[in-house]
Amino acid sequence: MSRDVAVVGAGMSPFGSLGHTVKSLFTEAFFDALDSVDKGIDPKVVREAYVGNMGFGGGQIGNLAALMTEHSRMLHVPTRKVENACASSGYAFRDAYLAVKAGIADVVVAGGVEVMTDVSPVRQRFWLGVSGDTEWERLAGLTFPGVYAMMATRHMHEYGTTREQMAAVAVKNHANGARNPKAQFRKEITMERALGGPEVAYPFTLFDCCGVTDGASCVILAAKDVAREYTDAPVWVLGSGAASDHLAVHDRESMTRLDATIRAGRDALGQAGLSPKDVDVAEVHDCFTIAEILAVEDLGFAEKGEGGRLAVEGASARDGDLPVNPSGGLKAKGHPLGATGTGQVYEIFLQLRGQAGDRQVGDAEIGLTHNVGGSGATCAVHAFGR
Amino acid sequence: MSRDVAVVGAGMSPFGSLGHTVKSLFTEAFFDALDSVDKGIDPKVVREAYVGNMGFGGGQIGNLAALMTEHSRMLHVPTRKVENACASSGYAFRDAYLAVKAGIADVVVAGGVEVMTDVSPVRQRFWLGVSGDTEWERLAGLTFPGVYAMMATRHMHEYGTTREQMAAVAVKNHANGARNPKAQFRKEITMERALGGPEVAYPFTLFDCCGVTDGASCVILAAKDVAREYTDAPVWVLGSGAASDHLAVHDRESMTRLDATIRAGRDALGQAGLSPKDVDVAEVHDCFTIAEILAVEDLGFAEKGEGGRLAVEGASARDGDLPVNPSGGLKAKGHPLGATGTGQVYEIFLQLRGQAGDRQVGDAEIGLTHNVGGSGATCAVHAFGR
Repeated sequence: MSRDVAVVGAGMSPFGSLGHTVKSLFTEAFFDALDSVDKGIDPKVVREAYVGNMGFGGGQIGNLAALMTEHSRMLHVPTRKVENACASSGYAFRDAYLAVKAGIADVVVAGGVEVMTDVSPVRQRFWLGVSGDTEWERLAGLTFPGVYAMMATRHMHEYGTTREQMAAVAVKNHANGARNPKAQFRKEITMERALGGPEVAYPFTLFDCCGVTDGASCVILAAKDVAREYTDAPVWVLGSGAASDHLAVHDRESMTRLDATIRAGRDALGQAGLSPKDVDVAEVHDCFTIAEILAVEDLGFAEKGEGGRLAVEGASARDGDLPVNPSGGLKAKGHPLGATGTGQVYEIFLQLRGQAGDRQVGDAEIGLTHNVGGSGATCAVHAFGR
Repeated sequence: MSRDVAVVGAGMSPFGSLGHTVKSLFTEAFFDALDSVDKGIDPKVVREAYVGNMGFGGGQIGNLAALMTEHSRMLHVPTRKVENACASSGYAFRDAYLAVKAGIADVVVAGGVEVMTDVSPVRQRFWLGVSGDTEWERLAGLTFPGVYAMMATRHMHEYGTTREQMAAVAVKNHANGARNPKAQFRKEITMERALGGPEVAYPFTLFDCCGVTDGASCVILAAKDVAREYTDAPVWVLGSGAASDHLAVHDRESMTRLDATIRAGRDALGQAGLSPKDVDVAEVHDCFTIAEILAVEDLGFAEKGEGGRLAVEGASARDGDLPVNPSGGLKAKGHPLGATGTGQVYEIFLQLRGQAGDRQVGDAEIGLTHNVGGSGATCAVHAFGR
């Protein structure tokens, strides 16, 4: 049967408004990943590379994956860009995992990079808009925050979810981000500030929305047969789930759940032989505060309609029963679209190895990453164990 | 060990300036692929999908893969877009092959789609420009034909390759395209016409360059264990090779060969246990006439510097020793960037099964596809047998 797969290294550039290029960001993340490999690794052993990116690198660069690998001492490696909007590197990770499983490569790299700040504000709106549906949503004038705002108001209507519950997600994730030296927004916010921010799209204030971010992340996967050559503390990929859905929200069965998350989560945990309550730490896709609430429900961490209580009651805090987004999440760590998926894997890699510094959660054996493309048209979920 | 993989179905839309959308083109190719499956197939059995595309579908559509699969009765399937410029679906095919090999999916779809005509002429130039290097080539004013023109003049200088030899490639491929009902340019041209066309970039006339094309293609891969449920005439994937190189031509060791082709070809044939002379029919990446000459040399079908003789002497003609581009190639069949790689597989699928109609080559047992991204930064080569 097919082989077990481990993550043996993980790296990340700082996330933020950095003024760096896609090349400098990606190489920084890759070399950081190389440095993280306990027993050392030569980039020449990499046999396949997958690079998540959405916007042509911010500079209209096609064939971007080749540019990233040639500048990262992986010249000549088979390499490709994977694009699924904000789930680009979640899928890049899945495909890297499959390449190892397929037996053609012992060591494979998955990463992602995005430069979002090197465009005008008008273009930045366009950026996020293309994550959702174009024909029925974007060209009708709906912004991307507007898409999630529709889902939020419907969730409020159906389940009584409140603006305070959403704001509690922002407060929690900012508290976590404040402890993450690579986060874009490193300051705590109060509930009053979160609720009183400038309105973006009702019910969202500025603090319900992730920022516009540059950054890169990179992880190194290895087959079980060779993993111990690189580290005595590999992080095992226990399950990989992925799914898709209608691109436009109005085509879906429900506006208050993401079927792609439900399916991907079920598959990833099922493959791992785990149930949601086995998960000790999770990085979920909180591009907007409502998205974290949807995620914890759709992944089975809370009953449907009850997700809003987790942050308010402290269950998803860093010292809660199930810490969610200890990195600060997309909300505070930042969301460089194509870099987010493997950025989540980077965080779980650190958390399961006890290397997350000031933001380390209590003894975590099982971790989960959840990466959503657009408003839920694509989703990749991975389960990890140490 | 990992499993053998077969192609059990293949489909293609017509290629051309069609006025159709990405959705209608992709669904046409996919349903054509379903129809080609001898014993029938339900799209619900597809477990993973890979969609090659370069330009956001021509309409700035992110998350495009999900849109393609939801409209093709593959709702909820794990799906992603693969982008490697003009080698996008060559890599989509490789990744689909790896997914089957990995043992997580018995039936996987690889396809590609591009709409290139729904943009202004200025934007069309931009389209192709982003396939090559941006910083040192495109922003310095070099067009994409200019990149290959540099390689052509250098090849002329080093090996004595002539404009007539390049024109002979165009004449051959137009002769083939004239017999292909799905080709964009379905008329023969004379040597005089090829040489006398409007100059694009010396030494290229219009007839040395592929056109601007809309189109889609799609193939269905299956694990050996289940392939016979779908057809008694599967086409086996005997080898998959891929490689990359510097994005900018000036960074490479040589301007007159593509190292990515050499490596990918060697790996694909090596895996298959074949040598170049075992190949009976090949679809190679002739975005410009010089590119076919480079391809036949770099794949080992001719000695270095001798590639220009093949078309002149008839060796690569439909009834020659090694028919090259019996479909008409990118030159005459058309080159809808993201659809080209799996379009080549479609042709080999037909040729090996004796279903290529008026353009059928003589009894072919071994076929090869060769798909290049940009000017050689990425390349995927596959070997097939019946």
